[in-house]
Amino acid sequence: MKIGIIGATGYGGLELMRFLHNHPEAQQIDLYTSSEEGTLFSTKYPHTTNLYDQPLLKIDQEQLTDYDVLFTSTPAGVTSRLLPPLIGSGPKLIDLSGDFRLKEAEDYEHWYKKTPAPKEAIEQSAYGLTEWNKEAIRKADLIANPGCYPTAVLLSLLPLIKEWLIDPKGLIIDAKSGVSGAGNTPGPMTHFSETNENLSIYKINQHQHIPEIEQGIELFGNQKTPVTFTTHLVPMTRGIMSTSYAPLSECVTEEKLLDCLREYYDGMPFIRVMPESAKFCTKQVYGTNFCDIHVKVDPRTNRATIVSVIDNLVKGAAGQAIQNMNVLFGLKETTGLNEVPLFI
Amino acid sequence: MKIGIIGATGYGGLELMRFLHNHPEAQQIDLYTSSEEGTLFSTKYPHTTNLYDQPLLKIDQEQLTDYDVLFTSTPAGVTSRLLPPLIGSGPKLIDLSGDFRLKEAEDYEHWYKKTPAPKEAIEQSAYGLTEWNKEAIRKADLIANPGCYPTAVLLSLLPLIKEWLIDPKGLIIDAKSGVSGAGNTPGPMTHFSETNENLSIYKINQHQHIPEIEQGIELFGNQKTPVTFTTHLVPMTRGIMSTSYAPLSECVTEEKLLDCLREYYDGMPFIRVMPESAKFCTKQVYGTNFCDIHVKVDPRTNRATIVSVIDNLVKGAAGQAIQNMNVLFGLKETTGLNEVPLFI
Amino acid sequence: MKIGIIGATGYGGLELMRFLHNHPEAQQIDLYTSSEEGTLFSTKYPHTTNLYDQPLLKIDQEQLTDYDVLFTSTPAGVTSRLLPPLIGSGPKLIDLSGDFRLKEAEDYEHWYKKTPAPKEAIEQSAYGLTEWNKEAIRKADLIANPGCYPTAVLLSLLPLIKEWLIDPKGLIIDAKSGVSGAGNTPGPMTHFSETNENLSIYKINQHQHIPEIEQGIELFGNQKTPVTFTTHLVPMTRGIMSTSYAPLSECVTEEKLLDCLREYYDGMPFIRVMPESAKFCTKQVYGTNFCDIHVKVDPRTNRATIVSVIDNLVKGAAGQAIQNMNVLFGLKETTGLNEVPLFI
Amino acid sequence: MKIGIIGATGYGGLELMRFLHNHPEAQQIDLYTSSEEGTLFSTKYPHTTNLYDQPLLKIDQEQLTDYDVLFTSTPAGVTSRLLPPLIGSGPKLIDLSGDFRLKEAEDYEHWYKKTPAPKEAIEQSAYGLTEWNKEAIRKADLIANPGCYPTAVLLSLLPLIKEWLIDPKGLIIDAKSGVSGAGNTPGPMTHFSETNENLSIYKINQHQHIPEIEQGIELFGNQKTPVTFTTHLVPMTRGIMSTSYAPLSECVTEEKLLDCLREYYDGMPFIRVMPESAKFCTKQVYGTNFCDIHVKVDPRTNRATIVSVIDNLVKGAAGQAIQNMNVLFGLKETTGLNEVPLFI
Repeated sequence: MKIGIIGATGYGGLELMRFLHNHPEAQQIDLYTSSEEGTLFSTKYPHTTNLYDQPLLKIDQEQLTDYDVLFTSTPAGVTSRLLPPLIGSGPKLIDLSGDFRLKEAEDYEHWYKKTPAPKEAIEQSAYGLTEWNKEAIRKADLIANPGCYPTAVLLSLLPLIKEWLIDPKGLIIDAKSGVSGAGNTPGPMTHFSETNENLSIYKINQHQHIPEIEQGIELFGNQKTPVTFTTHLVPMTRGIMSTSYAPLSECVTEEKLLDCLREYYDGMPFIRVMPESAKFCTKQVYGTNFCDIHVKVDPRTNRATIVSVIDNLVKGAAGQAIQNMNVLFGLKETTGLNEVPLFI
Repeated sequence: MKIGIIGATGYGGLELMRFLHNHPEAQQIDLYTSSEEGTLFSTKYPHTTNLYDQPLLKIDQEQLTDYDVLFTSTPAGVTSRLLPPLIGSGPKLIDLSGDFRLKEAEDYEHWYKKTPAPKEAIEQSAYGLTEWNKEAIRKADLIANPGCYPTAVLLSLLPLIKEWLIDPKGLIIDAKSGVSGAGNTPGPMTHFSETNENLSIYKINQHQHIPEIEQGIELFGNQKTPVTFTTHLVPMTRGIMSTSYAPLSECVTEEKLLDCLREYYDGMPFIRVMPESAKFCTKQVYGTNFCDIHVKVDPRTNRATIVSVIDNLVKGAAGQAIQNMNVLFGLKETTGLNEVPLFI
Repeated sequence: MKIGIIGATGYGGLELMRFLHNHPEAQQIDLYTSSEEGTLFSTKYPHTTNLYDQPLLKIDQEQLTDYDVLFTSTPAGVTSRLLPPLIGSGPKLIDLSGDFRLKEAEDYEHWYKKTPAPKEAIEQSAYGLTEWNKEAIRKADLIANPGCYPTAVLLSLLPLIKEWLIDPKGLIIDAKSGVSGAGNTPGPMTHFSETNENLSIYKINQHQHIPEIEQGIELFGNQKTPVTFTTHLVPMTRGIMSTSYAPLSECVTEEKLLDCLREYYDGMPFIRVMPESAKFCTKQVYGTNFCDIHVKVDPRTNRATIVSVIDNLVKGAAGQAIQNMNVLFGLKETTGLNEVPLFI
Repeated sequence: MKIGIIGATGYGGLELMRFLHNHPEAQQIDLYTSSEEGTLFSTKYPHTTNLYDQPLLKIDQEQLTDYDVLFTSTPAGVTSRLLPPLIGSGPKLIDLSGDFRLKEAEDYEHWYKKTPAPKEAIEQSAYGLTEWNKEAIRKADLIANPGCYPTAVLLSLLPLIKEWLIDPKGLIIDAKSGVSGAGNTPGPMTHFSETNENLSIYKINQHQHIPEIEQGIELFGNQKTPVTFTTHLVPMTRGIMSTSYAPLSECVTEEKLLDCLREYYDGMPFIRVMPESAKFCTKQVYGTNFCDIHVKVDPRTNRATIVSVIDNLVKGAAGQAIQNMNVLFGLKETTGLNEVPLFI
């Protein structure tokens, strides 16, 4: 397989390269950038010395059609222009940005404050939440890889919503992320001295992942409702935890919730429904494509607490993108993603 | 003022000593311990060299009556036995443990799994949430200093609940704490390699601060309801953030919530109702007795998000204890607590 | 005392404000900036709400003569122009930048790559290593406050060098710093995701503090030699540790080294010569003006290991600046600096 | 290959399992423990759910002979008794503890304060510094896997010492380690609240890795000298940096040092001699078996600064152990170890 990565110098690009290096089908990996053409990748990122000692290439629309797969990991507003002409031109396109995730153009405009991608292109794309959209992914030329928060949130809630075990109208989602989600551009929110030993809340009710979550609940859970969703910045590099609270439907027990999750995800290698344990934490999926889910019912309030953890850079970005590549090419889903978490 | 600290080697004790060192009325500070009698404090904690080069003293019930104030910062189940005989014997007693916080003995037994303090002693004690119970504190001989989580939660919610601006029946409280809340005894939950770069959720629906929060809502907010309360462990040493979600009462706006908070806390030096800002974070109160509160309304869901931050070891423990001492002795509340946060 | 702080929005400025807030002689504190005139300080830094709710002022050379003290905490190359006209004009000038530290203009040009301050101004200034230059400081109008690394290094080595107990020709200084030393401008070296869980070495043999250390050894230790000095970036916000290695002079024992240090620093409140302990660490001086020193002799190699720790923002910057202000105005050296370290 | 891991619940064991999971020759991996027999591994370490859902086995000397390889990752003093009877009984033995590293029994007794392994067993063992001892490793039944610090130190210094380019008599080694080196037993040195945001120096001149370093310099560098070696604890989980200082031999330049290193390690896949870069840091080898080396010469002092970084749990423990297994079984050295560092 001949693979191109556009936006190779960002964190999404770095993670793609980390996994593709050991992917048995990846024969050639070319790295594209908008600004550092000619620089050796291992000069920019010395940790890749002996692994990626190749020059960064300039993006050239014509050459791009030569690839089997193109991954794009760019800021919002780039691939909405770059990718539409490439649809159907040869390569499978897997976009890690938010440009093709929202089906409604107005939603994109409202939440991203940018010009949306052409309607037609959006219609041709498949939303890449692998466990929930495999059939569509298999047939699509363009995959809109999900956002990190929506991945953690939707995977943990969809079975329970779809089966009417919890009431999405009362849903509160309190999400927490490590700092790498903010990417590699230095700024005040990622300045070590103000981020270390500090916990922040940000974008209350305003995160651009809100419409993506609501769209996922509608598409896959068959229910339409606005949700309360809040994001916190945790002084760690990797990891997302989503803690959701929802009223239980009548006569629903903890065991019923667990059974529902276990049934939906039976045979799906990256979803682990976890039993009671002293500690449920982000590091149990560190560096891997796992999404772990944990559920507790409080009989005092008749509410469920549903918790999920992912590595934001893996299942929340590059890992799921490669999982989607595997689906697109008929490979085993775990190909190249078979890692044990770095719990320590 | 002659002051005794019982449990001086714990983190609560350390913080008391940090503030009392510069308290203008603290003339003598004696340090008591149950296990390291005779050891020089600065030998155990070299950072106090030249500041607390005195030996740790053995607890002796008779000598304890000589103090003007006794602070007790001990594990659950100790002061329920130690303090009752001392009530009215001379010293004002300020207990940082949970032993006198719950008015109902059964609640203590249920959540703490220990024998409760004598009913009479509990009745004589005042709950030390300074901003809400000053009159009772002033007259009491025994102060039950609040827990760290209840302090952050109650201060941010009580005015809104009392004024019926939010509906406590739908209250979800998602709380996050730094690791120092777990004290100075090493264990798996505080082992660096498993805590660093990791976010955990723990004691879902089972934290012993739940009944304390519900009691506070009843006592000061005049409403009785079970609440959903969940705690997370954040890889930082100090700081608590409480993020609460509640349905708004009819016609309530963000400005109305802010006005209510500002009115209740007008003239109270440690409560800061903060306007909109890019970043609302635990470090803005680091090392100080401040409790900062921030509120946002989501018109899409008609819910309020109410956020508060404290330093768990200061307003959540030693700082509030000294604030209560100041109230007890008719001093200005800020005496000895006039610090600027270490934002960096 | 009427005090002006120029460069108030940097970390040096923040720390000055933290200590001056409780300094009994600080009656008025004005905050100057080169770029954010009119902004309320507490809008920029919400943690100072209710403490510094005043507007940032534009620097105006004429008004500056009205102050009793002016602290300047600016990037290299600013005060070399700003301060010379102010010498003798009224205010005592305490410069936290490197512009007046090096007596030789060529050294400044070589290591800082900037135009040096006028020779005359440099001659009128006193190097502000308080414990070693008190007489000169007392008489000077302009104090060149030492660099953070030179403070930690010189305080630990000068007595031993001056007394010929160690041989400075063989001196190796391995220094480690927290990230706040890099200031508040975001950049790749301070980007959380690349700094957290990472230890870097930087500026090997090229740090601009090298000539300052060598000058200090010559001025106060009476020996002239180049030294090996290397700096590391540690994933923490505050703290410097200097680990120095030196050959022992003949017949010198560990006790002799300790005695020498104790004798030199007898009665000096901020220097603590620490006995053997299980742990010698930066947090034992956290947030305070202490410099702790520890010494070990290895009979196998006949070398001494001399370790010192400071808080880089306090004894390494703002704290020592205020200590120098106290000396200049005949106050007790500890005035306003009497804090207990935040070990936790 | 049938593999047994003794001491599977420690961090060394965890890392072995992480790499062996994807090792193409590892057919069966059995986990032995001294204390938690019968517990499912994934119950103890939930991050291994679906990966290692097998029970921990009781150590049984007779069964152990059935394996092709036995890894032992146990505290000092265990394998000195456990392994000698197994030498030559079938399995290749790879010991990650310090029990067989020191050739002189008195050294072991002096530095480890324990009874040494039988002299004969030590003589039969090969020191597992792969790049320097491959011939001996290939033929041995028992490999003494090197300590984490000696690995980082020796790999960076041996070529330069052996070629007389630096003078080992003047060698100063200042080493820094992440906290995972202390293992998984909670204690004061690893308690988060006292380790986070803190840098400690410990075991000055007393670390048990000193004799191992000196032995390595003698065996492979052909020079005998005591060295100065000091260890620091850095607030991060993984990573070791060794910063060494040494006088240069006459007429030696930086380029000569680099050439020497490049020549010695030519074709060795895990050693990367790195050119000048803005940042040389532990994270550039995070999670991998690389050892990166960097060298600078200071013409002012005629000394070299030699820096190396490894992941203490990989090249400093489990990774090198698997590398040695690959050598023992004639596999490519990189088999199962072909990871890209997690720089982020």
